[in-house]
Amino acid sequence: MAQNTVEKTPVTLLGLGVMGTALARTWLAAGHPLTVWNRTPARATPLAAEGARVADTAAEAVAANALVVVCLLDDTSVDKVLAGTDLTDKDVVNLTTSTPAQARARAEWARQRGARYLDGGIMAVPPMIGVPEAGGYVFYSGSPELFERHQQTLAVPAGTTYVGENAGFAALHDVALLSAMYGMFAGSAHAFALIRNEDIDPEALAPLLADWLVAMAPAVHQTAEQLRSGDYTKGVVSNLAMQVAGTPTFLSTAEQQGVSPELLSPYFELMRRRLAEGSGEEDLTGVIDLLVH
Amino acid sequence: MAQNTVEKTPVTLLGLGVMGTALARTWLAAGHPLTVWNRTPARATPLAAEGARVADTAAEAVAANALVVVCLLDDTSVDKVLAGTDLTDKDVVNLTTSTPAQARARAEWARQRGARYLDGGIMAVPPMIGVPEAGGYVFYSGSPELFERHQQTLAVPAGTTYVGENAGFAALHDVALLSAMYGMFAGSAHAFALIRNEDIDPEALAPLLADWLVAMAPAVHQTAEQLRSGDYTKGVVSNLAMQVAGTPTFLSTAEQQGVSPELLSPYFELMRRRLAEGSGEEDLTGVIDLLVH
Repeated sequence: MAQNTVEKTPVTLLGLGVMGTALARTWLAAGHPLTVWNRTPARATPLAAEGARVADTAAEAVAANALVVVCLLDDTSVDKVLAGTDLTDKDVVNLTTSTPAQARARAEWARQRGARYLDGGIMAVPPMIGVPEAGGYVFYSGSPELFERHQQTLAVPAGTTYVGENAGFAALHDVALLSAMYGMFAGSAHAFALIRNEDIDPEALAPLLADWLVAMAPAVHQTAEQLRSGDYTKGVVSNLAMQVAGTPTFLSTAEQQGVSPELLSPYFELMRRRLAEGSGEEDLTGVIDLLVH
Repeated sequence: MAQNTVEKTPVTLLGLGVMGTALARTWLAAGHPLTVWNRTPARATPLAAEGARVADTAAEAVAANALVVVCLLDDTSVDKVLAGTDLTDKDVVNLTTSTPAQARARAEWARQRGARYLDGGIMAVPPMIGVPEAGGYVFYSGSPELFERHQQTLAVPAGTTYVGENAGFAALHDVALLSAMYGMFAGSAHAFALIRNEDIDPEALAPLLADWLVAMAPAVHQTAEQLRSGDYTKGVVSNLAMQVAGTPTFLSTAEQQGVSPELLSPYFELMRRRLAEGSGEEDLTGVIDLLVH
């Protein structure tokens, strides 16, 4: 059989929010038979015109295909929507945002209903879906068999990164990366605040800021190496004692510029606490241990 | 006169800490006559062997050359060391870490003593000095004449980025970029803390984390554009209301993993405050205005 006549895996998709709709379009465009369902049926109308089959109920949509992708508002919605469906022998891929504990519980819940389960954490906003050069991807964790069987279909909307059998790991990776991003955004907010009342164009600061953050991001490799080895002094250039000694300049500058230090001081406070434990020769890595109970 | 016989500008350098010593070596290697002084004379000995002239006093070092580079511990040290020197008609380049207000006051202080003044903020750690591919550079602000006259000499240890006549702007840019970096480190610390007690190798997380931060860093361009235009809804993909709605997942995940939310919650709290002002359709940019008094 020639490549272009290979049957594409049929997909059922529950949930047509902005993200669900973006996912749906990529499968339709790639020639996958698609059955959709949404609580508000109107959102399915444009997709029907593009070739999707619209199911009247979630149960009907689930019955239509073996591969069932779920992209709803939250875990409570997943519970409600899947309640009256028959999941026996289904391959359920849950892309709904959830915590690691919710994902693990949902995996067990699915197992009890005779389904295989894969949890996903989407590292992309809807405009990045179906645009490989945008670099978005989805973390997957849970059933390795399900992932292997459907990887090609799952790779249609975005890249796939499998992070383990523990169904909570996709959500954990998702939350970890987005948390780090919020930290970067918080630091950038402080930086822009510092120049807010000065004659400095924020659009002149932005490229300097972006380049600096890109240059400093690889520091996480050294952090990881130190966490793995347990030796937090390995490869240190500017040690904790030196960095804590530098913090008054940051806090005074914030004060001079009329900027609240609230986004900066919690990290500095942890640096000081770690230094007080006698870790002046270390890198900043010890702060991580202070965060974990 | 052929290029290779052009006289290199003689440099006086006050302060031979780790950074000062790194600077000194690059000027010596590039053939600049160099006069050094350090409070503890022993630190000058290896440089003398490499061709530096070692002055007995700061006054003698300052008298030796028109270009005087200062790289001391802090602004108080600068005051003490330069107190007994004659700065008349000198080109003073102060690379000592200081706040914008200290830099502006030091510029005025130098002007009163008949000197031109340039302030510098070093965006590099000592191992990056003299290694162009490491990407380190120095922000300069203050006398444009001094910068123009000596740019070539100043470019020997690291790249040069001039950010304006206001002598405080180099320090302000320096602090802004490093503040943003600490925010990124804080976010990364939270990310590593989340996986600390799981069977996930930090060295497997690190490349995912670094790539994600690098991919998200350019978001500062949109922030800058919004700050400039005053329209914080322009180009929004995931608005403030949606992002605030997502925060419970982050906080629950932290709790489930036994991780203190202290590095994440201050930013989330500002997001909530901005949302409460009725800015749900905006990007995250409004948080910046909440920081500025």
